[in-house]
Amino acid sequence: MIVVMNSGCEQSHVDHVVELVQQMGLREHVIVGTDRTVVAAIGDKRNLDMSAVESAPMVDRVVPILAAYKVASKEVKQEPTVVRVGPGNAQIGGNKLAMIAGPCSVEDESRLIEVAHAVKEAGAIGLRGGAFKPRTNPYSFQGLGETGLKYLAKAREATGLSVVTELMSIEHVKLVAEYADVLQIGTRNMHNFNLLVAAGETGKPIMLKRGWSATLDEFLLAAEYIMNTGNKNVILCERGIRTHESYVRNTLPLAIIPAVKHKSHLPIVIDPSQGTGHAYMVPSMSLASIAAGADGLIIEVHTDPEHALTDGAQSITPETFAQFMTDAARVASAVGRST
Amino acid sequence: MIVVMNSGCEQSHVDHVVELVQQMGLREHVIVGTDRTVVAAIGDKRNLDMSAVESAPMVDRVVPILAAYKVASKEVKQEPTVVRVGPGNAQIGGNKLAMIAGPCSVEDESRLIEVAHAVKEAGAIGLRGGAFKPRTNPYSFQGLGETGLKYLAKAREATGLSVVTELMSIEHVKLVAEYADVLQIGTRNMHNFNLLVAAGETGKPIMLKRGWSATLDEFLLAAEYIMNTGNKNVILCERGIRTHESYVRNTLPLAIIPAVKHKSHLPIVIDPSQGTGHAYMVPSMSLASIAAGADGLIIEVHTDPEHALTDGAQSITPETFAQFMTDAARVASAVGRST
Amino acid sequence: MIVVMNSGCEQSHVDHVVELVQQMGLREHVIVGTDRTVVAAIGDKRNLDMSAVESAPMVDRVVPILAAYKVASKEVKQEPTVVRVGPGNAQIGGNKLAMIAGPCSVEDESRLIEVAHAVKEAGAIGLRGGAFKPRTNPYSFQGLGETGLKYLAKAREATGLSVVTELMSIEHVKLVAEYADVLQIGTRNMHNFNLLVAAGETGKPIMLKRGWSATLDEFLLAAEYIMNTGNKNVILCERGIRTHESYVRNTLPLAIIPAVKHKSHLPIVIDPSQGTGHAYMVPSMSLASIAAGADGLIIEVHTDPEHALTDGAQSITPETFAQFMTDAARVASAVGRST
Amino acid sequence: MIVVMNSGCEQSHVDHVVELVQQMGLREHVIVGTDRTVVAAIGDKRNLDMSAVESAPMVDRVVPILAAYKVASKEVKQEPTVVRVGPGNAQIGGNKLAMIAGPCSVEDESRLIEVAHAVKEAGAIGLRGGAFKPRTNPYSFQGLGETGLKYLAKAREATGLSVVTELMSIEHVKLVAEYADVLQIGTRNMHNFNLLVAAGETGKPIMLKRGWSATLDEFLLAAEYIMNTGNKNVILCERGIRTHESYVRNTLPLAIIPAVKHKSHLPIVIDPSQGTGHAYMVPSMSLASIAAGADGLIIEVHTDPEHALTDGAQSITPETFAQFMTDAARVASAVGRST
Repeated sequence: MIVVMNSGCEQSHVDHVVELVQQMGLREHVIVGTDRTVVAAIGDKRNLDMSAVESAPMVDRVVPILAAYKVASKEVKQEPTVVRVGPGNAQIGGNKLAMIAGPCSVEDESRLIEVAHAVKEAGAIGLRGGAFKPRTNPYSFQGLGETGLKYLAKAREATGLSVVTELMSIEHVKLVAEYADVLQIGTRNMHNFNLLVAAGETGKPIMLKRGWSATLDEFLLAAEYIMNTGNKNVILCERGIRTHESYVRNTLPLAIIPAVKHKSHLPIVIDPSQGTGHAYMVPSMSLASIAAGADGLIIEVHTDPEHALTDGAQSITPETFAQFMTDAARVASAVGRST
Repeated sequence: MIVVMNSGCEQSHVDHVVELVQQMGLREHVIVGTDRTVVAAIGDKRNLDMSAVESAPMVDRVVPILAAYKVASKEVKQEPTVVRVGPGNAQIGGNKLAMIAGPCSVEDESRLIEVAHAVKEAGAIGLRGGAFKPRTNPYSFQGLGETGLKYLAKAREATGLSVVTELMSIEHVKLVAEYADVLQIGTRNMHNFNLLVAAGETGKPIMLKRGWSATLDEFLLAAEYIMNTGNKNVILCERGIRTHESYVRNTLPLAIIPAVKHKSHLPIVIDPSQGTGHAYMVPSMSLASIAAGADGLIIEVHTDPEHALTDGAQSITPETFAQFMTDAARVASAVGRST
Repeated sequence: MIVVMNSGCEQSHVDHVVELVQQMGLREHVIVGTDRTVVAAIGDKRNLDMSAVESAPMVDRVVPILAAYKVASKEVKQEPTVVRVGPGNAQIGGNKLAMIAGPCSVEDESRLIEVAHAVKEAGAIGLRGGAFKPRTNPYSFQGLGETGLKYLAKAREATGLSVVTELMSIEHVKLVAEYADVLQIGTRNMHNFNLLVAAGETGKPIMLKRGWSATLDEFLLAAEYIMNTGNKNVILCERGIRTHESYVRNTLPLAIIPAVKHKSHLPIVIDPSQGTGHAYMVPSMSLASIAAGADGLIIEVHTDPEHALTDGAQSITPETFAQFMTDAARVASAVGRST
Repeated sequence: MIVVMNSGCEQSHVDHVVELVQQMGLREHVIVGTDRTVVAAIGDKRNLDMSAVESAPMVDRVVPILAAYKVASKEVKQEPTVVRVGPGNAQIGGNKLAMIAGPCSVEDESRLIEVAHAVKEAGAIGLRGGAFKPRTNPYSFQGLGETGLKYLAKAREATGLSVVTELMSIEHVKLVAEYADVLQIGTRNMHNFNLLVAAGETGKPIMLKRGWSATLDEFLLAAEYIMNTGNKNVILCERGIRTHESYVRNTLPLAIIPAVKHKSHLPIVIDPSQGTGHAYMVPSMSLASIAAGADGLIIEVHTDPEHALTDGAQSITPETFAQFMTDAARVASAVGRST
């Protein structure tokens, strides 16, 4: 932590800050500059709210130096984490890209199995589909619940795909964990810390979606919550952020891929469906994600988007997905990856 | 819903959209403009995901006309809702402003009671204080839990203040509802729909904080989730949004006050502590909130901000709060309200 | 500047950074922490791009300590600047609030004079009105040019109000300066540094509007460009920022008022018309601005908003303005100011 | 335009809106829905500020249907525009990607020519380099001016590269146009409409950078300003937007590539240097841009980033650029393009 004093501060103000720093169990280091004095506080106290020092007289601001996350960081583990999922023991985080596809919501059994076969054939390793749906609108379709989970399990049986489905509430942890291969934490729950812990404790692989206005540090701290339960199988997922842009439903910031690779050992997959909101953008943004170094994609695929109960505008058809997978193989190969 | 067709669309494309509209149980109205054809769809189908029509060929975009919230809207109820809370049956939403103050977190009993007496004397009707704390950083102080709730209850007994405290998890609903007069749903949980429903079902007044990147519609839809349980005692709370600004922790958009008054009958209170992140901004932004028509304020007050376990940088002292309340009385009176 | 090294850096990396710091003419101070080493660089070199040090091996990031603005800061001048404008020598920045009102665009002479009389009578000291209009849409009304300036001068003659009008281009500096009492730099030109300098060199008071995604530092640096011409008569103006919010045209972040008072001696006025985009929000946000400590307001007033050529949706009528001014007097008095 | 009435409006309110619509020279179409009445206004009046109708009583909001840009849109021209630039008559917008590289600022002649040779050899067709620099900080290096332009011309002579350099001010139009092959309009000037027109009138190809909080519509309207001078040689350039994200200097929203291709015939190039702010992200985001369908890239390359006078943190070395170009060739080929 660096405490920047206001210009015009007196020795007594600096002394007071030094005292606060010492009370925190940190060692101080005072640097008198030409315009400003700063107090550097040395020591690892990730558990302290150091910003309180800002309340001291003549303190301009407090600049943290250490990120608060640790086990999610490359400082602790250099080699990339590879998460193994599902019946096929598929890898997420390895050289081979992990493609996960399927409908936004599970709507009915036969349609789900139809989609599952199609995406499997095109090269997917995972089947997505929501049984419990977080809906902004209380009057919207809320998902089939356990019935949806059963359909997902049948589709897995039929295809060998891993099931990736959202966990929305602690009370469903046991139920969802029974059916799913990967528990998805949605963007609205990234800061739902109790849920993160409960999900982590299942030991199942967790796909953690970034909150739509979370910072990168907050994203990695949410991963840290999960990892602190002893569950290291965390897959990060970027699904777009809220900005002023209106030609997209969300702004998909792909620079988070190199940023995550720079700071963390965890794999990262991209959701171009939520990340744009428009089906026509999904193939190009998926290819871009691969070129930028993503470890996988999670894509909404529906056999009849015009009649989808949820997210029809951003769902592509199995035909478009199959075509995309052909293109994806070429781009992956161009950056030294496979599909 | 208005479906805007692309220029160059043919009759068959329009016919297809008309068919989709009819399948939704809506009536269509086709308007052929000079450059564009639009299909207006008539009927109240708040439960449909109409955006799926965007997937039809030659559709440019879909513009919703109806807001999805209903019971939270002024269309259903014109007169402002007044929520009555706590031992004193204090009003939130009436002519008298509701002032709620107290520490970010409950830290210890004697300090809490000291603050409670101070803010009561200055004119507060509610005592805030977190017993369960949502912390971005897993290594930070996470709150005292039930012990904290007990201290809050003692402070209520000592002062007659209503207790406003955060509910973070469904498993704590019964516990928190036993001690609290107002259940607070934090910004990180505004989209935690299961929690909204569980909180609503207690019948207790709910203070619902806006998610930090939620839209106004999403905010009112979250209120609708609660109100659909039959609990009409919802108090909206604005606590700042995420933007590019860095001189504040959050950007406090006070225009939400007239906007809420325009669209909803629910009361709205402002949190200038979270809403700015800096103690020195709290008094002026609190006065601004009153002038803009807020129904109350929720302010972080701590006897020793420099040593606060959480949010020290944005906590004001009891002395500053008392001075503020004197100023607040004058501004409230200037806009025809009382404190 | 603080250079934060990556964990795992070696002495040679630190030595290299020290060398770069010394080459910049700065003095270094190396602090070896428990997890990280940081190099503090001491000295005032506002003219250097210190971020280049980030390119050195094993540098994590560079944290600037000094703000780059100087003459706009309170470090250089503690007492608030009061700018005197126009025929009446009215003050902007003193205890009395400066109210500026008028149409978005100058449309015709008689209507302008009608509005001018109305706002003067209600208590305004300045008349706003665009003769040169920056229009996003090339097909929109672009202003009356010099004819508009002449109408403004006539309105000044008739009422004694100061004329506040926008300068869009260096080629118009002489022309606009001839007619205007205050040159307004619009939000789209805050970063148009050549224009800032040319405007400053006229010696006229300058109303500088914040760019809609500028940071506070960038805002004050733009003021610094003007002040470095020797022209100290700069009036800052906040007019809202771009965010994800859609119930307003712009988000009006009133916390910039205490922030500016904290860091600078320059006066700040608020534009609630641009700052919200909706006439119904203008009175309440204007009162909020006063309560927050603004030094004045600039408000769009039109006798017939439904037929205004520009910004009709956010223009209030002279009657609403007069009513507002009555309310404003009370709120101003409540915070120790006058109108 | 669609005018949405408030619920509870009366026939007289609708009649009044119809009258306003007719006064604008538009034809009305009233649709009475179950909850709301809407008035559709038919006719192409791109020059009107229709939002003024929002001021009429009982109007909820006004929804524009037509985008205001026309000549920049695909409605007017389906086939993609290919802009030819410089001595080699290189294409921007064709199958072959246009790579433009060079230092942020022109610093000295020999270094510039060294970089020019290096990027030419690696496959670039254009040389970037600022002679006039828009600097947020008035104390920073402001560019070499005409001397810088002369160095650029020499580098062109030596290498055959096209010169791409920024035009900051109308007074420099003639000077910059004399030396440059492509005039760049920087992000800070996208809304400087007089400059757009003056640049357009040179007839030179214009690279128009998106304003950092401009919408896509505003971006295309800025292009429309240029194209209305008769100059159709506009190259769009995305360089990142301002968001809450702090691990990047700007957020690079690559979905603008398919969006532009969807709405406009103009070519689009990406600036990954400004678009991220960190050299380590430039190669991956450049590959992502190619995969997403960009028509070219403009990249900051410097022989000694640690000592660059501007933007050192985001400049890559010639070696990194050459390596990137090898990778770029593979990715381009994977998506059916060449480098």
